[in-house]
Amino acid sequence: MLPMTEVDPRVTRTRNDVLNTTISVLIDEGWDAVTQPHIARVAGYSKATVYAHWPDRVGLLRDAFARYGDMPHHEPTGELRTDLIGELTSFRSAMIDHRLDRAMVVLAERASAVPEIVDIRDAFTRDGERPVRKILAAVADGAELEAAVRMLCGMVVHSVFMHGAAPSDAVITAAVDLTLQGLQRG
Amino acid sequence: MLPMTEVDPRVTRTRNDVLNTTISVLIDEGWDAVTQPHIARVAGYSKATVYAHWPDRVGLLRDAFARYGDMPHHEPTGELRTDLIGELTSFRSAMIDHRLDRAMVVLAERASAVPEIVDIRDAFTRDGERPVRKILAAVADGAELEAAVRMLCGMVVHSVFMHGAAPSDAVITAAVDLTLQGLQRG
Repeated sequence: MLPMTEVDPRVTRTRNDVLNTTISVLIDEGWDAVTQPHIARVAGYSKATVYAHWPDRVGLLRDAFARYGDMPHHEPTGELRTDLIGELTSFRSAMIDHRLDRAMVVLAERASAVPEIVDIRDAFTRDGERPVRKILAAVADGAELEAAVRMLCGMVVHSVFMHGAAPSDAVITAAVDLTLQGLQRG
Repeated sequence: MLPMTEVDPRVTRTRNDVLNTTISVLIDEGWDAVTQPHIARVAGYSKATVYAHWPDRVGLLRDAFARYGDMPHHEPTGELRTDLIGELTSFRSAMIDHRLDRAMVVLAERASAVPEIVDIRDAFTRDGERPVRKILAAVADGAELEAAVRMLCGMVVHSVFMHGAAPSDAVITAAVDLTLQGLQRG
């Protein structure tokens, strides 16, 4: 792919329109509705345009989920507790405001059944965990770092997937405090 | 429902056969394949039998997921660390050996789209979390208890749903130790 600066802005706009539409259709109509002809119709572009950018459907889904990597994150302050609470709160907002919860559970379900979706899920998870992992890597490593990352991200994911509601401020704060106390940083 | 002792054992056997088949069909063929006629055919019973027990499809799904409540759990020893590691390891085994991972992610996905499935998911989550919650309730309460339960169960759920693999022994142990140290019980 060319560096961003060399891409015609109209092309960038078209791509972003189509990728935003892809996520909306996925959320509203489900996985099977994400086909190039249907996305083209909903986004208001020709089928030829969509097929030119994404000859295969999996590539379209991959790029659509990759856009979540650009979502707003908490601006780090260097203070562990503040940054973890801020980042988990941003993650919770993304779930609610951008309906990331629904997109994620559809992605998880599809990846558990369709091998070609596994790479999309793994990239999404890696990008999503990166800020929390970076904050915690200052004070933990190995299995302890892995456990702390999965407990904190997992607390949010589990709440949304299995309880059907994002965690409260009190539960986010308690989770961060337990983790930092556990790491002897509380 | 009648107490277990008053139910004809043939009826119990039929119910269990049909419910086991329901979960297998759900895992192998997906949510839409769970219909009374299809389940009857796969389980080797008449449609009339299946409809007599479960006039509606949601009831069939509810009873099928409720059977996971009977799954083997770790036998408590009274030692916090041992019991938490044992229970999370049992949960991991259930995910792998009984393909609970696939059934859970399908349930989570459907509950995020279909309101009448929410109660099934909530009952499933409540039953699944109960042993961990009971162990931790001896040493925590309020938001701290809620955070600890969701972090430990969430660590396993997140690993399976978003990483596509159950957590290692080292990560389970580190998660339990972090939690207990956080609760000043490590």
